[in-house]
Amino acid sequence: MDGFPAVYRMAGLPERVSVYEVGPRDGLQAEAAIVDTATKIEFVRRLVDCGLKTVEATSFVAPSRVPQLADAAEVLAGLDLAAARHPVLVPNERGLDRALAAGAREIAVFVSATERFARENLGTDLDGAIRLAEPVVARALAAGLGVRGYVSMCFGDPWQGAVAPAAVAEVVGRLAGLGVQRFSLGDTIGVGTAGQVGALLAAVDRTGVTRDRIALHFHDTYGQALANVIAGLIEGITEFDASAGGLGGCPFAKSATGNLATEDLVWLLRGLGIETGVDLPALAEVSRWLGQRMGRQPNSRVVTALTGR
Amino acid sequence: MDGFPAVYRMAGLPERVSVYEVGPRDGLQAEAAIVDTATKIEFVRRLVDCGLKTVEATSFVAPSRVPQLADAAEVLAGLDLAAARHPVLVPNERGLDRALAAGAREIAVFVSATERFARENLGTDLDGAIRLAEPVVARALAAGLGVRGYVSMCFGDPWQGAVAPAAVAEVVGRLAGLGVQRFSLGDTIGVGTAGQVGALLAAVDRTGVTRDRIALHFHDTYGQALANVIAGLIEGITEFDASAGGLGGCPFAKSATGNLATEDLVWLLRGLGIETGVDLPALAEVSRWLGQRMGRQPNSRVVTALTGR
Repeated sequence: MDGFPAVYRMAGLPERVSVYEVGPRDGLQAEAAIVDTATKIEFVRRLVDCGLKTVEATSFVAPSRVPQLADAAEVLAGLDLAAARHPVLVPNERGLDRALAAGAREIAVFVSATERFARENLGTDLDGAIRLAEPVVARALAAGLGVRGYVSMCFGDPWQGAVAPAAVAEVVGRLAGLGVQRFSLGDTIGVGTAGQVGALLAAVDRTGVTRDRIALHFHDTYGQALANVIAGLIEGITEFDASAGGLGGCPFAKSATGNLATEDLVWLLRGLGIETGVDLPALAEVSRWLGQRMGRQPNSRVVTALTGR
Repeated sequence: MDGFPAVYRMAGLPERVSVYEVGPRDGLQAEAAIVDTATKIEFVRRLVDCGLKTVEATSFVAPSRVPQLADAAEVLAGLDLAAARHPVLVPNERGLDRALAAGAREIAVFVSATERFARENLGTDLDGAIRLAEPVVARALAAGLGVRGYVSMCFGDPWQGAVAPAAVAEVVGRLAGLGVQRFSLGDTIGVGTAGQVGALLAAVDRTGVTRDRIALHFHDTYGQALANVIAGLIEGITEFDASAGGLGGCPFAKSATGNLATEDLVWLLRGLGIETGVDLPALAEVSRWLGQRMGRQPNSRVVTALTGR
């Protein structure tokens, strides 16, 4: 709707926020449909055209594990790496070799805050996951690449229940010790609520990793993502992950709703007068377009409200 | 999921919050399906059994205008008015006559914060709407009934765009002058964002109506409802309207998503350690049950996550 949202600031919030777009990687890897390479490239390029400055492009995971992203090198080859930041996920040294060969300039590594998820998802334990990340981080840094560390299950784990902030902080501290520069703390199953955000950040503070190195990654499985963003903004966080059109499901709940939709995040930030540089109606159209290609309704209330169901 | 949400308090928020359930009235009046009287009565009773202390039961609007609620008197006759508060909406004196005859103990009146919506929805202007409310409020108070005033379009209007907080405050002040005791400020089209909540409440403060008389009524059309609840809690508001299973659409957007779902609200409040007295899994089951009766998916992320799609 024209003229909405109206802009009203809240005292003490940041002036600008970086939106870290994860749809092409975190979103598409969790969708049942396999999107063709040309559509993926067009999707990423159109996201950049909407003003998104960081679009995680793909993952150099084993194609046998995630067939949705088997074309990682081809996707990266189709992008203008000077026009925007296009980090790629790298699960191990083999993935790093492929990412380097494909010309990646930034990578992300992935560990869990919980032992049980490390076992279930990565087939190792927490120590093992960090040992796996160590040479990846070292070699990426030596090659001049930026390195982000995803920490999953920071708010809750489907097996262990609630996750203690101190356990997350310990993982952040260990990754920082390896040289990881920035961190994305993920509520992978979407169970976190607003008060937990401050408790988690207070625990991370004690590792010496400053808040300007922390991004928050919320899932909307229980509808809490934007309430948690408000809590993050109050705590001074200035980077949030989101997925265009809410791409990506949640593997551990009966809901199809996973990632926070970028459009819903940008609506909130615009209303708060916080600059993101994103053209919201254009972005909603991109999500609508991709949804039509995929035969899928966007999981974004803003997209639905703006473009119809 | 067992053990979720984990409880983490945020400093400065209230200890307790009243959930004002509007599903049987505001929800059902906006649904295309007409629910039979026995199911409505069972729905309200089951909501009370879940611990909801206030369940707005129906509306004594003209049956020709809202056939969904044509059985208002029969619904009220089927309820135990001593077991919980069951306010009813009353649009005019004819409705009040019917509500009094049916034994209602609390009523709600309804006005718009904008001239244009008064014309489009009520067929009058703002002065006309308040003149219409005046004898209803006076007679209800004289009969010893509690009176709530709904003010709609407090954040935005589909024709006029953003609504100035001062315009809302003026309507609140005029209704308070008639003797209206409590107020529900509604974001009828769901366009409001968190900063607007504080600005609106600051404007209302200047009327002399204190915040313990104010409830906030958010719609989730753009996914902002819970972020706005956080802002309301920070501002000291202790009553929020919500609709079980997100019953009720939004008439002025392409989205089917209207009222904030009670389950999503209660999940947030539980996570913040704020007492509501509501049994959340039981409530999600009630919404699932009604959805099956109506052939409709609940519009609540918590219901979907807990009970499946």
